Amino acid sequence: MRIAIGDFLLSRLQDAGITEIIGVPGDFNLNLIEQIDAREGIRFVGTCNELNAAYAADGYARSRGLGALLTTYGVGELSALNGIAGAAAEHVPMVSIAGAPPLYATEARYDLHHSMGDGNFENILSSVGQITVAAVRITPHNAVEEIDRALHTALREKRPVHIQVPSDITHLTIEAPQEPLNTAWPSSDPERLASAVERIAELFAQAKSPVLLVDLDADRHGFAESLQKLAEKTQTPYAQLSSGKAILDEQSPLFLGTYNGAGSAPDVRSKVENTDLLLTTTPRFIEANSGSFTHKLPSEAVVDLGDQHVSIHGEDYIGITVQELLDALLETLPATQGTAAEQATPAQPAEDTPEWEVAPGAALTQKRLWPRMAGFVREGDVVITEAGTSNIGLGPQRLPSGVKYVNSGIWGSIGFTLPALLGSQLAAPSRRHLLFIGDGSFQLTAQELSTILREDLAPIIVLVNNRGYTIERWILGMRSAYNDIANWDYGKLPGVFHPGTSMVSHSASTEGELEDALAQIENSSAGAFLELHLDPEDAPAGLKAFGPMTADFDYGPRGPRNA
Amino acid sequence: MRIAIGDFLLSRLQDAGITEIIGVPGDFNLNLIEQIDAREGIRFVGTCNELNAAYAADGYARSRGLGALLTTYGVGELSALNGIAGAAAEHVPMVSIAGAPPLYATEARYDLHHSMGDGNFENILSSVGQITVAAVRITPHNAVEEIDRALHTALREKRPVHIQVPSDITHLTIEAPQEPLNTAWPSSDPERLASAVERIAELFAQAKSPVLLVDLDADRHGFAESLQKLAEKTQTPYAQLSSGKAILDEQSPLFLGTYNGAGSAPDVRSKVENTDLLLTTTPRFIEANSGSFTHKLPSEAVVDLGDQHVSIHGEDYIGITVQELLDALLETLPATQGTAAEQATPAQPAEDTPEWEVAPGAALTQKRLWPRMAGFVREGDVVITEAGTSNIGLGPQRLPSGVKYVNSGIWGSIGFTLPALLGSQLAAPSRRHLLFIGDGSFQLTAQELSTILREDLAPIIVLVNNRGYTIERWILGMRSAYNDIANWDYGKLPGVFHPGTSMVSHSASTEGELEDALAQIENSSAGAFLELHLDPEDAPAGLKAFGPMTADFDYGPRGPRNA
Repeated sequence: MRIAIGDFLLSRLQDAGITEIIGVPGDFNLNLIEQIDAREGIRFVGTCNELNAAYAADGYARSRGLGALLTTYGVGELSALNGIAGAAAEHVPMVSIAGAPPLYATEARYDLHHSMGDGNFENILSSVGQITVAAVRITPHNAVEEIDRALHTALREKRPVHIQVPSDITHLTIEAPQEPLNTAWPSSDPERLASAVERIAELFAQAKSPVLLVDLDADRHGFAESLQKLAEKTQTPYAQLSSGKAILDEQSPLFLGTYNGAGSAPDVRSKVENTDLLLTTTPRFIEANSGSFTHKLPSEAVVDLGDQHVSIHGEDYIGITVQELLDALLETLPATQGTAAEQATPAQPAEDTPEWEVAPGAALTQKRLWPRMAGFVREGDVVITEAGTSNIGLGPQRLPSGVKYVNSGIWGSIGFTLPALLGSQLAAPSRRHLLFIGDGSFQLTAQELSTILREDLAPIIVLVNNRGYTIERWILGMRSAYNDIANWDYGKLPGVFHPGTSMVSHSASTEGELEDALAQIENSSAGAFLELHLDPEDAPAGLKAFGPMTADFDYGPRGPRNA
Repeated sequence: MRIAIGDFLLSRLQDAGITEIIGVPGDFNLNLIEQIDAREGIRFVGTCNELNAAYAADGYARSRGLGALLTTYGVGELSALNGIAGAAAEHVPMVSIAGAPPLYATEARYDLHHSMGDGNFENILSSVGQITVAAVRITPHNAVEEIDRALHTALREKRPVHIQVPSDITHLTIEAPQEPLNTAWPSSDPERLASAVERIAELFAQAKSPVLLVDLDADRHGFAESLQKLAEKTQTPYAQLSSGKAILDEQSPLFLGTYNGAGSAPDVRSKVENTDLLLTTTPRFIEANSGSFTHKLPSEAVVDLGDQHVSIHGEDYIGITVQELLDALLETLPATQGTAAEQATPAQPAEDTPEWEVAPGAALTQKRLWPRMAGFVREGDVVITEAGTSNIGLGPQRLPSGVKYVNSGIWGSIGFTLPALLGSQLAAPSRRHLLFIGDGSFQLTAQELSTILREDLAPIIVLVNNRGYTIERWILGMRSAYNDIANWDYGKLPGVFHPGTSMVSHSASTEGELEDALAQIENSSAGAFLELHLDPEDAPAGLKAFGPMTADFDYGPRGPRNA
C-alpha cells in the first residue's frame, strides 16, 4: 500500500502500543504533529521543554513497554539527550524522533538555524548516536527499512533509538507493507533450549538452597510474572538489588530483602553469597547497589538469565529466547511444598524503626518518615522516587503487592521523576501515582507540574524540603552554601501553573501535621501537593553510610572529606 | 611551582577573566567546588539545572569574553549539551568543565552511576566532542598542556571546549608554570599584512560607494570599536545582518539598516548588493537573516575580515592577525569628510509605524509595542531578546548607542534568554538589563528566575504572553492546540521563587496600562516583571512574512500550509 512517510512512522508506533507522543513543537516537526492530530488513536502531548519530554517518555515506556519522544533538530534533540541517555542506562525502550531540516537542504549543506550554521548535519546525529543503539536520518528510500529496524532495535535491546525525519518528506508517499509491525522474537534453537532446561532442572534438583536475585532487566524483559511463578512453584527465596526493587512481590514469605554487598542485612548477604544455585537476571552492580563494590556472588553457582541467552556456571547457551526457557522451566520443574519458604527468614526490617506511633508535636525525621510513607502506599500504586533521600529512604521499606516502583538507580539524574510521573500517568491513567521528590531535584524540572495539571492528572506529590542537596551534603560540604538552594514557596506552584487547579497543597513540619494531611489526601480523589519540612542534615541511615563511602571512592586519599 | 590540579585549572580561568563559575553540584565535582570556595576572586554560582547553567555561561561569555560552566559526569554534561552547542553555533567562547568519575575507576572500566553501567567512559566524551572544538579528560600527566590548549582553543576559535576532571585528581599537585595564561595571539606575517593593507587601501581609493556589512563575528573577535572608527574615518556607511544587530552604533548617520536579502529595505539592499567595495565580517546567512536565501553579495567586490585571514576579491591572505590589519588600516586610510555619510539615506524605518501617541484604552498590538519598547531602552543597556516575536519585533527598531544586544539568531534555542540574562548580569552587574521573552520560551527555563532573584539582580523582564508559540503559529498550525501552552499566573512567580523579593510584578493589556507600568519601572531601581497580554495571532510584520516563507522552505510542495 502507499502511505505518507509520517503516517507510516505513526502507524508503526501505534502497532508498538504508543497512544501518546510526548515532546515540544518546532518548525521542523510541526508537519508531523499535523499528521498526529489527523490520526485516530494517537495524540501529541506538549511539555514545557525537551529534557522533561524525554523523562516523560521514559516514565511512559516503563508502563507501556515503549515511549515516544518528539523534538526538533539540534536545539530539541540535544536538550533531550540526557533523558535519552537515562533510558539507555536504565534499559528503557524509547523512540526519540526529531524533525530535521529538509532533505534537500541537508544534502546541499545549507547554513540553517538550529545547526551550527556551517553546513554540517552529521554532528548532531553523531552526538546522539553515541548513546543510542540506532540513530538514523530517514529518506523516502530507506524509511520502511530504517523505521522498522529502529523500532525492533529499541524493543529488543531495551534502549533508546533516534530517528531524524527531514521536514520535507513526511507527506510524500511510499510503498509500505500492509502487515503491522512484527514484535515477536525468533523462537529458540530447540536443542539449545532443551539442553538449558535440562541443565537447570538438574541444578534445581541438586540444589539445597536455591536463591533468585532480581535486577531491573527482569522487569524490562517482561520476566517478572514468570519469575514470581517460578519462585513460588519451586519455593525459591528471592532477593533484589535496589535497582530491581519491587519487581517481585515484597510481601511474599519468599522475599528475603535487598542485596547490597556488605551493606546487606546479614541473612540476605549470607543466603545470596553462599547459595549453591543463584539465578540472576543480568545484574549490574554499581557503587550504590553493591555496598560500594563489596558484592560477592558465588560465580560457580550462578545461572544468569539474559533475554537471548542463559549463562550456566559460566557456560553461555545462546540462541535462546529466555521467555521460552522460563515457560519450559515452569512446566518442567517439580513443585516444592513450602520447604524453602519456611527456611527463608522474614525480609530484613526497614532500618531499626519502632512501630509507628504518632508523636503529634514531634518534628518530622527521615528515620520515622519513610516507614510511615510506606504504610500510606496501597496495593497496585505506582511509586516514583527521586534520587536522594526519597529513594534511599523508601528503598528499604517493604511495599505492598503489585506496586510498580520507578526510579533511576543507575543513571541517577536528579529532576527525572516529576516528568517521569507525567509520562507514567499518561501511560497508566487508572493507577494511583505517588511521587516522592526532594526540593533540590524538584527545581530542575519543576515546570512540568504545569503539564501534569493541564492533563488533568491527579497524582500525590510529596516534596521533601530540606533546603538543598542533602545527598550531597553527606558526601561533601555538609554545611557548605553550594549545597543549599533557594527556598521556594512551593505550595503555591499548583495554583500558579494552573489557576483554579483542583490539586490541593498541604504542608507539614510535625508528625501531627503529616497525619492530618495524609488523612485529607487519603479521602480525596484530587491531586495533592504535600510539602514536608525536614532538617537539612537529617538523612536516612542508608545515606549516612553511603555518603562517606562515596567520598572515599570519588576523591581518593588526597581529596577532601566532611569533618 | 607545584600546585593542585584543581587550583591550576581555576588559576587559568582567572587569568582569562572568569570570576564566576556557573553550574550544578554533583558528587564528582564537589571537590572542585571546595577549591573554588577556598580561592580568592572566584566563586561558584549554582543554578537550578545544567541547561540553564550553560545558557548562563553563554550570556556571561558575551560580556566577559569567556564563560565557565561546571557540571557533573553524564547527567550534567549531557543536560547542558544544547547550551554548549548554542555557544558553538553562536561563536561564544565557553569552557565546559565536568567532574568525572575517578581516574582509576574509568581506567579499570567500573560500572558506575551516571554512566551506562557498562564500563564505557568514552561515549559521553565523544558525544560532547561532536560539538566542541576540544574535548579532553585530564590526568596529572596531561593537565598543564591540555588545560592551556583547551582554553587557548576556546578563546581563539570563539567556541566551547569541554574538560572532564576526574574526581580523584583535583587535590594532587603537579609542576606548573609560574606565568599566567598567555592570551596574546601571534603577530602577523609582516609581508602578508603589508600586502593586505596596501591592497585594501587601493580598493578604498578606487571605491565610489564602499559599504561595511557586519555580522556577529565582528563582536566575537572584538572588532567592533575598530570597525566603528574605520567607518567614521572613511565615512563608510554600514549595514548589519540581524545576527549582527547593534554591534555598530545604530544611531550613527552612517547606519543604513539591516540587510536581509529580498527582505531588506530597498535602499539597504541596493547599497549592499551594488557596492564596489563591500567589507564583511565572515557573514553566515541562514534562512532568518537572508530573506530566505535571497541575499546576493557582489562577490567581486567583497573584502572579508576573518580573525586570522582576510579574503580580498576571493584571494585569501593568511597569517594575518586581523586586529593588526584594522589598526594599520585606521592609520593608513585617509580621512573622508562626510561625503559618504551624506549619501547614506537614513536608516530604514521600523515597519510603517506612526509616531507613538498613547491610546490608553487600546489593546496592545505587536505593531505598536516594539517601537514603544525601543523607546524605553537607554544608552548602554543590555537588551536580551528571545527568539520569536521579541527578537523579530525589536530587531528592526533602532536602539540607542552603546546598547549590547543579545540573542540567539543562529541556534535559536527557545528558553535561552532567561538564564542568559542571569549570566550576562553576573558578568556586567553595573549595566541595566532588559529581557524581552515570550511565554512559550519562558516556560522552558522559568525556574532560573529564582537564581536571578537569589543573586539579588534587578533586571527588567518583559514577558509577552500570547498563550503559546506565536512564531510557530505563523509557520504552521495558526489555531492548532499544539501551539498553545498553559496560561500560568506568571506575575506570582517572583514571589514564589523568592518570597519577600523586591522585584515588582506588573501586568498590561492596554497601552495605558503599559505606560503606567513603564513609568513605575523607570522610576524604580528594583527589578520588574512586566507581563504583557497580546493576541495569540498577532505578530510583527517580519514574522508575518517569515512564517509562510519558512513553511515553504521546510515542508516542500507536498507538505501542509496554514489556510
